[in-house]
Amino acid sequence: MDCTTEEIAKHNDASSCWIIIKNNVYDVTEFLSVHPGGPSIILKYAGGDATSAYDPIHPPDTIQKNLSPSQCLGPLITTTSTTDWKDRVPVEQTQDEMRVEREMKHRPPLNRVLNLADIEDIAKRVLPYPVQAFYSAGTDDEFSLRENTRAFDRFFFHARVMRPVSTCDPSTKILGYDSSLPVFVSGAAQAILGHPEGELNITRACGNAGIIQMVCTFASIPRARIAAAILPSQTLFFQLYKITDTAASTKVVREAEELGYKGIFLTVDAVVVGNREKDVRSLWVMEEQEGKTQYYVEGDPEATTNLFGSSAVNRRNVFDPDLSWRETIPWLRSITKLPIVLKGIQCVEDAVLAAEAGVEGILLSNHGGRQLESSLPPLEVLYRIRQQRPDVFDKLEVYIDGGIRRGTDVIKAICIGAKAVGLGRPFLYALSAYGEGGVIKLLEILHREITISMRLLGAASIRDLTPEVVERVDWEPVRRRIGKL
Amino acid sequence: MDCTTEEIAKHNDASSCWIIIKNNVYDVTEFLSVHPGGPSIILKYAGGDATSAYDPIHPPDTIQKNLSPSQCLGPLITTTSTTDWKDRVPVEQTQDEMRVEREMKHRPPLNRVLNLADIEDIAKRVLPYPVQAFYSAGTDDEFSLRENTRAFDRFFFHARVMRPVSTCDPSTKILGYDSSLPVFVSGAAQAILGHPEGELNITRACGNAGIIQMVCTFASIPRARIAAAILPSQTLFFQLYKITDTAASTKVVREAEELGYKGIFLTVDAVVVGNREKDVRSLWVMEEQEGKTQYYVEGDPEATTNLFGSSAVNRRNVFDPDLSWRETIPWLRSITKLPIVLKGIQCVEDAVLAAEAGVEGILLSNHGGRQLESSLPPLEVLYRIRQQRPDVFDKLEVYIDGGIRRGTDVIKAICIGAKAVGLGRPFLYALSAYGEGGVIKLLEILHREITISMRLLGAASIRDLTPEVVERVDWEPVRRRIGKL
Amino acid sequence: MDCTTEEIAKHNDASSCWIIIKNNVYDVTEFLSVHPGGPSIILKYAGGDATSAYDPIHPPDTIQKNLSPSQCLGPLITTTSTTDWKDRVPVEQTQDEMRVEREMKHRPPLNRVLNLADIEDIAKRVLPYPVQAFYSAGTDDEFSLRENTRAFDRFFFHARVMRPVSTCDPSTKILGYDSSLPVFVSGAAQAILGHPEGELNITRACGNAGIIQMVCTFASIPRARIAAAILPSQTLFFQLYKITDTAASTKVVREAEELGYKGIFLTVDAVVVGNREKDVRSLWVMEEQEGKTQYYVEGDPEATTNLFGSSAVNRRNVFDPDLSWRETIPWLRSITKLPIVLKGIQCVEDAVLAAEAGVEGILLSNHGGRQLESSLPPLEVLYRIRQQRPDVFDKLEVYIDGGIRRGTDVIKAICIGAKAVGLGRPFLYALSAYGEGGVIKLLEILHREITISMRLLGAASIRDLTPEVVERVDWEPVRRRIGKL
Amino acid sequence: MDCTTEEIAKHNDASSCWIIIKNNVYDVTEFLSVHPGGPSIILKYAGGDATSAYDPIHPPDTIQKNLSPSQCLGPLITTTSTTDWKDRVPVEQTQDEMRVEREMKHRPPLNRVLNLADIEDIAKRVLPYPVQAFYSAGTDDEFSLRENTRAFDRFFFHARVMRPVSTCDPSTKILGYDSSLPVFVSGAAQAILGHPEGELNITRACGNAGIIQMVCTFASIPRARIAAAILPSQTLFFQLYKITDTAASTKVVREAEELGYKGIFLTVDAVVVGNREKDVRSLWVMEEQEGKTQYYVEGDPEATTNLFGSSAVNRRNVFDPDLSWRETIPWLRSITKLPIVLKGIQCVEDAVLAAEAGVEGILLSNHGGRQLESSLPPLEVLYRIRQQRPDVFDKLEVYIDGGIRRGTDVIKAICIGAKAVGLGRPFLYALSAYGEGGVIKLLEILHREITISMRLLGAASIRDLTPEVVERVDWEPVRRRIGKL
Repeated sequence: MDCTTEEIAKHNDASSCWIIIKNNVYDVTEFLSVHPGGPSIILKYAGGDATSAYDPIHPPDTIQKNLSPSQCLGPLITTTSTTDWKDRVPVEQTQDEMRVEREMKHRPPLNRVLNLADIEDIAKRVLPYPVQAFYSAGTDDEFSLRENTRAFDRFFFHARVMRPVSTCDPSTKILGYDSSLPVFVSGAAQAILGHPEGELNITRACGNAGIIQMVCTFASIPRARIAAAILPSQTLFFQLYKITDTAASTKVVREAEELGYKGIFLTVDAVVVGNREKDVRSLWVMEEQEGKTQYYVEGDPEATTNLFGSSAVNRRNVFDPDLSWRETIPWLRSITKLPIVLKGIQCVEDAVLAAEAGVEGILLSNHGGRQLESSLPPLEVLYRIRQQRPDVFDKLEVYIDGGIRRGTDVIKAICIGAKAVGLGRPFLYALSAYGEGGVIKLLEILHREITISMRLLGAASIRDLTPEVVERVDWEPVRRRIGKL
Repeated sequence: MDCTTEEIAKHNDASSCWIIIKNNVYDVTEFLSVHPGGPSIILKYAGGDATSAYDPIHPPDTIQKNLSPSQCLGPLITTTSTTDWKDRVPVEQTQDEMRVEREMKHRPPLNRVLNLADIEDIAKRVLPYPVQAFYSAGTDDEFSLRENTRAFDRFFFHARVMRPVSTCDPSTKILGYDSSLPVFVSGAAQAILGHPEGELNITRACGNAGIIQMVCTFASIPRARIAAAILPSQTLFFQLYKITDTAASTKVVREAEELGYKGIFLTVDAVVVGNREKDVRSLWVMEEQEGKTQYYVEGDPEATTNLFGSSAVNRRNVFDPDLSWRETIPWLRSITKLPIVLKGIQCVEDAVLAAEAGVEGILLSNHGGRQLESSLPPLEVLYRIRQQRPDVFDKLEVYIDGGIRRGTDVIKAICIGAKAVGLGRPFLYALSAYGEGGVIKLLEILHREITISMRLLGAASIRDLTPEVVERVDWEPVRRRIGKL
Repeated sequence: MDCTTEEIAKHNDASSCWIIIKNNVYDVTEFLSVHPGGPSIILKYAGGDATSAYDPIHPPDTIQKNLSPSQCLGPLITTTSTTDWKDRVPVEQTQDEMRVEREMKHRPPLNRVLNLADIEDIAKRVLPYPVQAFYSAGTDDEFSLRENTRAFDRFFFHARVMRPVSTCDPSTKILGYDSSLPVFVSGAAQAILGHPEGELNITRACGNAGIIQMVCTFASIPRARIAAAILPSQTLFFQLYKITDTAASTKVVREAEELGYKGIFLTVDAVVVGNREKDVRSLWVMEEQEGKTQYYVEGDPEATTNLFGSSAVNRRNVFDPDLSWRETIPWLRSITKLPIVLKGIQCVEDAVLAAEAGVEGILLSNHGGRQLESSLPPLEVLYRIRQQRPDVFDKLEVYIDGGIRRGTDVIKAICIGAKAVGLGRPFLYALSAYGEGGVIKLLEILHREITISMRLLGAASIRDLTPEVVERVDWEPVRRRIGKL
Repeated sequence: MDCTTEEIAKHNDASSCWIIIKNNVYDVTEFLSVHPGGPSIILKYAGGDATSAYDPIHPPDTIQKNLSPSQCLGPLITTTSTTDWKDRVPVEQTQDEMRVEREMKHRPPLNRVLNLADIEDIAKRVLPYPVQAFYSAGTDDEFSLRENTRAFDRFFFHARVMRPVSTCDPSTKILGYDSSLPVFVSGAAQAILGHPEGELNITRACGNAGIIQMVCTFASIPRARIAAAILPSQTLFFQLYKITDTAASTKVVREAEELGYKGIFLTVDAVVVGNREKDVRSLWVMEEQEGKTQYYVEGDPEATTNLFGSSAVNRRNVFDPDLSWRETIPWLRSITKLPIVLKGIQCVEDAVLAAEAGVEGILLSNHGGRQLESSLPPLEVLYRIRQQRPDVFDKLEVYIDGGIRRGTDVIKAICIGAKAVGLGRPFLYALSAYGEGGVIKLLEILHREITISMRLLGAASIRDLTPEVVERVDWEPVRRRIGKL
């Protein structure tokens, strides 16, 4: 292979994408579509050196493990001096970088941030567009993404009055561990894209606040480093992506257990990666901003003899597509004593199967609207369990995530039967906007909103949040944003 | 404490807020969040003299009663002459003050004001923005605020024809007292912010019109002065905020009874203050208008060791958070012979409990969407009582408030079972826009709309307004504003 | 009285409104609110000479009959010469008049008018704004007006295929009279405001088309002149406003019968006039256009001692507010042999009473959304009769009007059980835009739309339009205007 | 007849429309309304030479067969030299032509086209406006057109997890023929207007992809030429418009069978042509763009003595309006051995009749919202069959078309019971934008979307797509377009 910078620079888009990492050259064209962090991040460095982006957020050897030998093209041949190479790096800022710099200076003071929508707004202003797109994207037309949130709008309270609420305790237990709110951090990858300290911002804030963090298999900070950062009283859960190489996954689980993680959340809704178009398009948006829009040229090669290929899953799919009730749960039980929670249950039928399989919990989730389009909103699944199979609530702990943005959203889910609710993107937005201080602010907001609303609902503790105090109404409430920063 | 104007001027925001009242200095930082009138009004005077705003609308000693000794910082040390001080006061008008002045000159003639939406529009144009925000704000995303109104849109009439309506009498009785319309003034605080004569504008107009006014515990005109202003035939009710100091509340109730108030409306939906973000943001909007936007500075102190504090209600909460069926009603019965109405019932279950507790009435209300977000619209609660427990209507009088803006809205509520309906904000808007004349106009509009609609509905009296003539439809009517002044 | 032009000119608004008609002066202040054509038309001439507007559209003596002697102020005292008076008349065109002139020149060719919405658009462009407002206005917030139309959107067809439709006959009978379509002209007043030939445009077009016209009590062309214009085969119905003076109404009915009208449509939904704000505001809109906006002046007289007056209907109400099943129907039977139809039935209960009262038909109507706000859409009432009391369809003929704008709308109503449907405003718009040619075009469009849709529905005749071929769906179809002229 | 170019040029609109084809002159005024391609295409050439547009897309003699002898006016009389005639032809480009040229150069590269909405957007940019209008138009207010798509939004998935999906096979059989996806090309006419190779673009792409194409009776490429272009393994179906001349239709069917077409899809929803206003208006839009807007002139001839004509179908209607269960099916059976599918079934009742009639399949369709307005969306009909008469699925194959734009749309229909789904317009848009490459791209997108979604749904094959995994929800999901090219 001609691993010169000149040749490499030609492979600079999705049709042929080479990158340099630590002076080695890789062909990641095929890998683009299965990258857990999405293709756009990689494409940003197509035809050039990606070390600075890759290095801080990946365990060593990650890339080698995910590529075939033929895709490892060999060491970089430096025909020009390092100085020359640096000359090639554009010294001018992009439009987007200038925007980010400007917006960072105009963030509002933290004491004016009133709610999670404020945090999201500010984060979207200060994040590089491709990161914003990666964080916020949903599948296809984003029905599930939007409906996750709108589902909460349809539930109204039967507020109870004349009940003493001078003391109001929103704390609960999750898998037996204390939680100061019925809220936990749901796993969300690539926090480092928003802030150099990445997931550690969450870890530190949660320690003070008594909130449990679920850490991703693909966290951008090594899971050992996160485990080393916690307070003695602090609890971490581990989110597991089972990969096809079962031995590797076994090793990961054992490592997590040894590091002190207290529960395994096995993701079951991501056997392949969802179709997130906003993410895919983000690079083209950048091109257009820079006045480098590309156009179709007649004769571009696109004909294929075998249009659809084999019916087998793409060979480079990183996740195990063959999870099963019969094999996966027993395997996991056999390698860990930790409680097991299935993350990504999307219907009543599977909630029942999970209860029969004897797992400790299920997290009703459609991956924040990032996997199957038109998957039912988790709150609606929760409501159907309450209506159709309330016995499930007695057999395991039920959590939900997706679309929760207000203290009242949390309370609604708890009333219907959830033991706790997870939030994902809001934490990424908080750390992107203000680092650890942003995460602290987010938790303060949730605490304030939850305790005010519980008191106004006549609830002195989580036990008072019962199905009777919520009602699913038969009309469509109107959502409108009030005031912005 | 260094109570010089120089030092005071440094404590000019929510992080540290000092104010001068009648030459005494107070630290109201903690008090901000529990001020019944919201923090923004106070913050307007942070670091300066608030006497002109405080004095006319508070009973003497109010501030001392609500602050701890350590928050009373002592007398103002005038190191500069009064003349100097006055020099510090900005002589230039703010953008907002100029807007108000301009809009006051362009109010339409009163005979062109056709409906309550016109009145609200005009008031919003002529009110200082912070007052407008305080009056109009709802909780969180304002779902309950909006849905209160939209609930009426879903009810349609089965108009009856061929019924003699040359005479049409819309009068009724409320707690046994004559009311010329099935309408009363629901308690709404701080009328003085909209007009110097405050609640007296309402009192005078209602006297002529035969309408009953409910006066707030925190009315900006002393309740004795209001009582002194009524006609012999006129009726007043008293809205009671029970505070933690029961002896003080006892005194207030007895005073009201002696002053001739004819009923006690005990507020039960405000054990803590709701999260009204429009109100909180109003001061920042003003800053931005004046080109004085503040930005975040890295390193601003925001970390906390104990994030959430104790689970007990904030020690400075002004309202009694421990109301109860077992204690509060018997206490109130024991100190007054007046009929008791619970203001803020939000579900069928509590309506039933109220009937069992033997109170004379309930006011279905979610505090105009200002307390618990996602509380059911009062009209929907009323409808559920009709569907599920119509016996409640036989045991006590049921009223509703929240979202009523048309004569047909009033009629719909009466048809379903309400004895009368309350309006709050519309009266504040009317007096803000045109003083007493505005309130008269508002009542004329309601009278005209109610009698026209009753006749077109085939109803010659309130008795003809029965459940059969309304129907809750299963579609979503479209709301659109027609024409404006 | 001082009937000089100087004095008269002072009485130029709704607080005191004098007008000159044929050199006599009248105080029409009280009459404004009961004028069948609305107050705005009169106010246009307040303080001046209204002869040119009054004369062509009112029977002689109309004004004297409607005013008390004291309101007839006497003959005009001409202190100035006619020449002087004419000088006072503004010679410049108003903005609105210029707009109308311009738009008249830019009407599209008639063969490009594709549907009734096109006709309405064009009419609204070429009509003087006050006339447009008078024609198009609904009550209050215009819920009933809008929902009348939207009701049709919720009904979908079960189209039937493989049925011979080479011949497709849309004709039917209404009260036994031939109608080439299941459509008639519903009474709508004041056609002369849109075109100098007024209702005659409709009469002539309907003659050729075999369509029946219902003529208003207050038609702007004398009913005798209309009767004189019909073809031998042509049928007219008479719309009756019963007034308090029963003898006068008796005379009117007998006259109509003698003139050859074939049925009496007694209006029962207009005992008082609805609150049509767009109409009331139209004059102020004109003022604003001319840069003559009026503003509120402190001290304007508006206080009243007796705010609401008596509970009796305004003494100048022109319509009889005391219609009743017991008296009105027998009276009408006793004075005419013509079939009787009640126009303005708005619920199932009254449909049943009408059947029991033995009338020949009912017209389900809420007066085009111009009377009671939130009155159920007629199509929904029709559907409820089909669901709850289908026996009514066997006892009398049921028609509907309100919101019908497409051939499919007509077909939907016929399927559910209507014998025929009425259209009102569309005819006014058609003659306003293009005179008689516009009405012909309207009828051609309806004929084309009805026959195409019947064929596509598998219906060869009206008999094939049965309840089974429509379904009321449970979602909200989206309405959007496609293309415009 | 005066067949000079001068005279011909006078007959240049819908009121009198003459055209020249190959030096012969035709009066197509009456034919306009029955032209399968809509009137606007013809009107573009009214008063001039239409040969260039007519010739490539019509079989020889088409026009003569469709006109009466009196409408064939005779040979063109060339009184001026060809040179003169050419001088009359405008040499300047129209605004629209310039727009098309510009947009063609700015199409995005094919590898950036992510979904079918992208393809539609690009096609609408590069198509001449009249063609875009012809392709995209629906009937009347386009309710059925829009609701066809929105129907899919209301169905959500009960995604199943923990099911092995490493292999996922989306292939199926349609009428016994292999199909690599449960998708076929539904007949859509006039592909040549979008691309000179017309339907052949589809044929070639489908061959490679293993997808079945249904070819129209009025395909713009002769059906023999299409049949000659297929691969040995490739399957074609034939869409039949039965015309009144049964012998001619018999000949067409036999020819199709001989050419190797494998099934007959008899269109039953088009006995007359729907009212597609966007199409009709398109020419006027062009005029306006060119600054040649026409206006109404008083006195234009439009009065008619017999307004509505006979109740018989227009004599020039090209389709047989007298299809019937009793005659049409037996006739078709008698002339072909091919399986018969009825295209355009719109209700459960007719689905049942079709099963009883013994046809092999039905295509639930409302002609893409181009025929009967307010016809139920096909997906809703499919759902009603599942609810009310699931036995139908056992008796014949059920397909649907209309509104399908995503892989999840396909899957939803299959889950409810469809054997396969048809797409029409998307193929026209794909070939208009990029020719054969566009069609390939479209099929790749569908394949990708279907297989990703099947895996995320836990489905390894079409057999796993059962009614249990979809739910029709009772709220209205919000549709919003995410990102564009």
